[in-house]
Amino acid sequence: MIQVGIIGGAGYTAGELIRLLLHHSKVEINFIYSTSNAGNKVYKVHQDLIGSTELGFTNTINSEVAVLFLCLGHGNSKKFLEMHSFSTHTKIIDLGNDFRLEKNHIFKNKSFVYGLPELYNDTTIQEAQFIANPGCFATAIQLALLPLAKNNLLQNDVHINSVTGATGAGTSLSSTTHFTWRDNNFSYYKPFVHQHLGEIQQSLTILQPHFNADILFLPNRGNFSRGIFASLYTHFEGSIEEAKNTYKEYYKDALFTTISDTPLHLKQVVNTNKCLIHLHKYQNKLLITSCIDNLLKGASGQAVQNMNLLFGFSEDEGLQLKATYF
Amino acid sequence: MIQVGIIGGAGYTAGELIRLLLHHSKVEINFIYSTSNAGNKVYKVHQDLIGSTELGFTNTINSEVAVLFLCLGHGNSKKFLEMHSFSTHTKIIDLGNDFRLEKNHIFKNKSFVYGLPELYNDTTIQEAQFIANPGCFATAIQLALLPLAKNNLLQNDVHINSVTGATGAGTSLSSTTHFTWRDNNFSYYKPFVHQHLGEIQQSLTILQPHFNADILFLPNRGNFSRGIFASLYTHFEGSIEEAKNTYKEYYKDALFTTISDTPLHLKQVVNTNKCLIHLHKYQNKLLITSCIDNLLKGASGQAVQNMNLLFGFSEDEGLQLKATYF
Amino acid sequence: MIQVGIIGGAGYTAGELIRLLLHHSKVEINFIYSTSNAGNKVYKVHQDLIGSTELGFTNTINSEVAVLFLCLGHGNSKKFLEMHSFSTHTKIIDLGNDFRLEKNHIFKNKSFVYGLPELYNDTTIQEAQFIANPGCFATAIQLALLPLAKNNLLQNDVHINSVTGATGAGTSLSSTTHFTWRDNNFSYYKPFVHQHLGEIQQSLTILQPHFNADILFLPNRGNFSRGIFASLYTHFEGSIEEAKNTYKEYYKDALFTTISDTPLHLKQVVNTNKCLIHLHKYQNKLLITSCIDNLLKGASGQAVQNMNLLFGFSEDEGLQLKATYF
Amino acid sequence: MIQVGIIGGAGYTAGELIRLLLHHSKVEINFIYSTSNAGNKVYKVHQDLIGSTELGFTNTINSEVAVLFLCLGHGNSKKFLEMHSFSTHTKIIDLGNDFRLEKNHIFKNKSFVYGLPELYNDTTIQEAQFIANPGCFATAIQLALLPLAKNNLLQNDVHINSVTGATGAGTSLSSTTHFTWRDNNFSYYKPFVHQHLGEIQQSLTILQPHFNADILFLPNRGNFSRGIFASLYTHFEGSIEEAKNTYKEYYKDALFTTISDTPLHLKQVVNTNKCLIHLHKYQNKLLITSCIDNLLKGASGQAVQNMNLLFGFSEDEGLQLKATYF
Repeated sequence: MIQVGIIGGAGYTAGELIRLLLHHSKVEINFIYSTSNAGNKVYKVHQDLIGSTELGFTNTINSEVAVLFLCLGHGNSKKFLEMHSFSTHTKIIDLGNDFRLEKNHIFKNKSFVYGLPELYNDTTIQEAQFIANPGCFATAIQLALLPLAKNNLLQNDVHINSVTGATGAGTSLSSTTHFTWRDNNFSYYKPFVHQHLGEIQQSLTILQPHFNADILFLPNRGNFSRGIFASLYTHFEGSIEEAKNTYKEYYKDALFTTISDTPLHLKQVVNTNKCLIHLHKYQNKLLITSCIDNLLKGASGQAVQNMNLLFGFSEDEGLQLKATYF
Repeated sequence: MIQVGIIGGAGYTAGELIRLLLHHSKVEINFIYSTSNAGNKVYKVHQDLIGSTELGFTNTINSEVAVLFLCLGHGNSKKFLEMHSFSTHTKIIDLGNDFRLEKNHIFKNKSFVYGLPELYNDTTIQEAQFIANPGCFATAIQLALLPLAKNNLLQNDVHINSVTGATGAGTSLSSTTHFTWRDNNFSYYKPFVHQHLGEIQQSLTILQPHFNADILFLPNRGNFSRGIFASLYTHFEGSIEEAKNTYKEYYKDALFTTISDTPLHLKQVVNTNKCLIHLHKYQNKLLITSCIDNLLKGASGQAVQNMNLLFGFSEDEGLQLKATYF
Repeated sequence: MIQVGIIGGAGYTAGELIRLLLHHSKVEINFIYSTSNAGNKVYKVHQDLIGSTELGFTNTINSEVAVLFLCLGHGNSKKFLEMHSFSTHTKIIDLGNDFRLEKNHIFKNKSFVYGLPELYNDTTIQEAQFIANPGCFATAIQLALLPLAKNNLLQNDVHINSVTGATGAGTSLSSTTHFTWRDNNFSYYKPFVHQHLGEIQQSLTILQPHFNADILFLPNRGNFSRGIFASLYTHFEGSIEEAKNTYKEYYKDALFTTISDTPLHLKQVVNTNKCLIHLHKYQNKLLITSCIDNLLKGASGQAVQNMNLLFGFSEDEGLQLKATYF
Repeated sequence: MIQVGIIGGAGYTAGELIRLLLHHSKVEINFIYSTSNAGNKVYKVHQDLIGSTELGFTNTINSEVAVLFLCLGHGNSKKFLEMHSFSTHTKIIDLGNDFRLEKNHIFKNKSFVYGLPELYNDTTIQEAQFIANPGCFATAIQLALLPLAKNNLLQNDVHINSVTGATGAGTSLSSTTHFTWRDNNFSYYKPFVHQHLGEIQQSLTILQPHFNADILFLPNRGNFSRGIFASLYTHFEGSIEEAKNTYKEYYKDALFTTISDTPLHLKQVVNTNKCLIHLHKYQNKLLITSCIDNLLKGASGQAVQNMNLLFGFSEDEGLQLKATYF
């Protein structure tokens, strides 16, 4: 059993991480750090956990844990690591966006690896010590495009429309997460300039160095709590069979990414660590659909997947989750 | 055209009032007072009104308006009237709870009449100048019980379970109106001690002076935005036909209250000023269902109904609303 | 008061039409034809109408009505008109898709005019006798594109993503309108081949005869009941101010279409006959958002608007609707 | 690994059972019987299971399995067992209501035990071969009342109001599970005569033989898919502390039933096998809230719990589920 520490324990991603780690056979939660909730039981905040754990929040940090998860608001991971030191053996998985881009990969002699397991066909993640866990939209979109990039097939603009659940906006109360507003509503935000575009472009360029077409990404707010449904299309000369073969070949060893022959609906993946992908050909366009749970494959589930790889556990340990489906 | 002023213009009830009054043929909105939004267009806050009105919020009050609607938080109507004076002819309709109870009916020489039109079979409201508009739960529950009280038939405990939409909690952001919490959720609050019990008991006692059984009222939070569904049962000796006749007789002149022979569902009344009532007999219990839109018959619609009565307009002027239904 | 007949009275669009016409000051509903419900009260099917009308369904047709609304499934209007004759003065408004395309405009000596009022700047509709009422997606999308087409500004592919409520699928029970499936779900359907593309292309070509770029339209199923939210983008050289001026000029006399300076959310239009449009410029792309209620501006509301024009009533008679908003 | 067979594999409870058993370390699914889907992959029906299993439906039954789950419509378990025979060692868990009542416990020499583990403080279930798995409402309500009955404290009428999700109505399409009807709606059904009252009364009488007060149970349809929220109150002389002690003592060894000191909301239990209970005292009334997931603790989760007990597995094997919570 390795010892795990969680920083920023009151947010959504920390809550999901705790839900996952409580049932993970190889880890023990050593501490859950939350200055605002120190002294309280965890189930007072993550209220579904009543009966599942008597763990409490603490404001004390154990710098000797085997792995540390940073579940802080974007920009706060750097601040935290500037103020706290950890054992040289401690591995760190940051769920924020502080270290995802090449230009920010190195911080205080720590070299962060971008933690999208499906991006690599080698042991890059297994050998890393510091992981920058990808963003939720970034995960759904990259998984939809990596097989094309890998085969130099991204030759034209990519048009992306995607809708996310309200958990994507975090725990803070806001007008667009107020129930009377969000219920039965729909809207877009940050048209074409979402902050995840950087990491998406970075990964595509790794696989297809001369990729330089536009990525036109319109994110939307859906009236549900969990999940990302992304539809993407781009120019594609090949047949639908060639497309499917390309994707199935790329993901042949992926435990969580599956190509579906039938069109997708979001609830197929909710409360799982899966990414489902569907392909459809129309004239010279390839339409790719990609669905994930934004808090799992899009955040805490992927963080656990990365931890499993870092420590040589089975990749799906603790991630064989029962879908909600309804 | 009479001149209307609205105080507290940014809240839900003021928004509904504006929506109603813009299409009311006998009134003109003279001003909409909101200190926090003064200078802004009304449609910047009530955003569905874009294209419907160029009215703005103001921090100036016209004390000569024919009627003034107070759409303030509970307790704030008194404060407001302490600080502002109005013409002796100005009628006032308070949507808060400050003046609903007998002990609070008189304030600064103003005598407030409890504004539930279906409570009276005379011209009490027509002759009033100051109206204390009933609460939302209070309206749904009283309309379910008045015919029994009128006929001295409330002889035992009344058991009430009722569920309300999130607009009932007002515009303030809160943990129980956060989308990720409220969506697909259900919970109760204020068990047996809801603040509307006072006005309910007061009205029942007017009609049935010796009523002294318990009213056991459990309010619930539903995962929808609009509407109140109340189910009530109490001991009843008569037949279902007698019950129906009693109710139909009581409401024979009521424009907005209808007895349905088939069981109800909430969306029959959403976005209307209706109250629907259904009766069911089981053994010696009479089960009464009552549905209203909490913001209309439960607030702003009833306020307009009261205004219509105060000024001798047709009682349903401006209230012939298209139901949303879906 | 003109006499109105409704054919196919049990469906969603007929229900909405009845809701509207009951409060329309210039018309009287003469009959509501539904073979399956003949003899029943209308409020037994459209259950919100209890207390609003005692009208019943009939299987008898009055061929002398001033206007007839056909609310039949697609393909059934032709069949109906083959079997029934009407007075030479009877005007007909078909809510189906049977007569929308140029090639189907003429049927049994009846010449149908495409009933999108905002398409014309003359009296085409006013002078018509037979109206083919536009489709819901078709309305939202055309209103988003007409100003560009009018000014020859559609010079490149148009990318459209749109989400519709479950009422768009009609009253028939189906797996994708089953609550346990639809609630909190999202999915697309008919990718790039939706049946409304024909009427969209037809109208664009009327205004911009040489338009021949692709329209790439991906419709989605949202987990709400009412409304269409459409986002469209295309190449646009001008500035955002030029775009806004173009749209405001085009819609300067439109009663129901308004350009919003702030981004839209769907509930601004639900339960109204409005179309709201927002414009955003990103690099050389113009992003246009268009929102309507699919059952009103997208169906029955527009049908009433057309009727008002046919008979010289005020265009918004019976259409000054209170938005639900919550 | 024991071999498991599932009969009626296409319904909701079978789907949940498959989701659970795929991750259960002690069992192997031997066959999933569905005549209508024979030959299809399971993930074609339970579509979240794509990538999780390549199992298919079959119309062949292996009569030697160690345990058989009957997931048939009510009344169909008897018919099925009349037509099929199984090995003498095969244990059977029926999720329908055919064998729950004392008068139906024995069928073809099989003696069914009512499978509510929390009802017994002995090895009744462990020693059984045939289990009649309780109903969903019945589970939520019994768990709320058993501690009182055990202590002879049910001395007066019990008033129960409960709301259930749409999965409670099964997979069949129906007007009250049509999305446009159910979304944002609320209604009751079967007032005071729900079919689960029999098993509730049977269990209470086991623990408190002279119990003869009324149980007034009003079930409601909520606009969510999963979960039951039940609120119950009855006369109670003791203090709230005495009540809590009574409940905590009764459930001290229960793995899935927990007493919460804070009021409950439904989503605390969704997608778990938990039952949460909260107690509140008002005057001489004890208000008990009970929440379960109707498909898990109310059906398939409890069936697995029973199987675990039958076979001596750890009681929570395969049931340490991650809550959805959002």
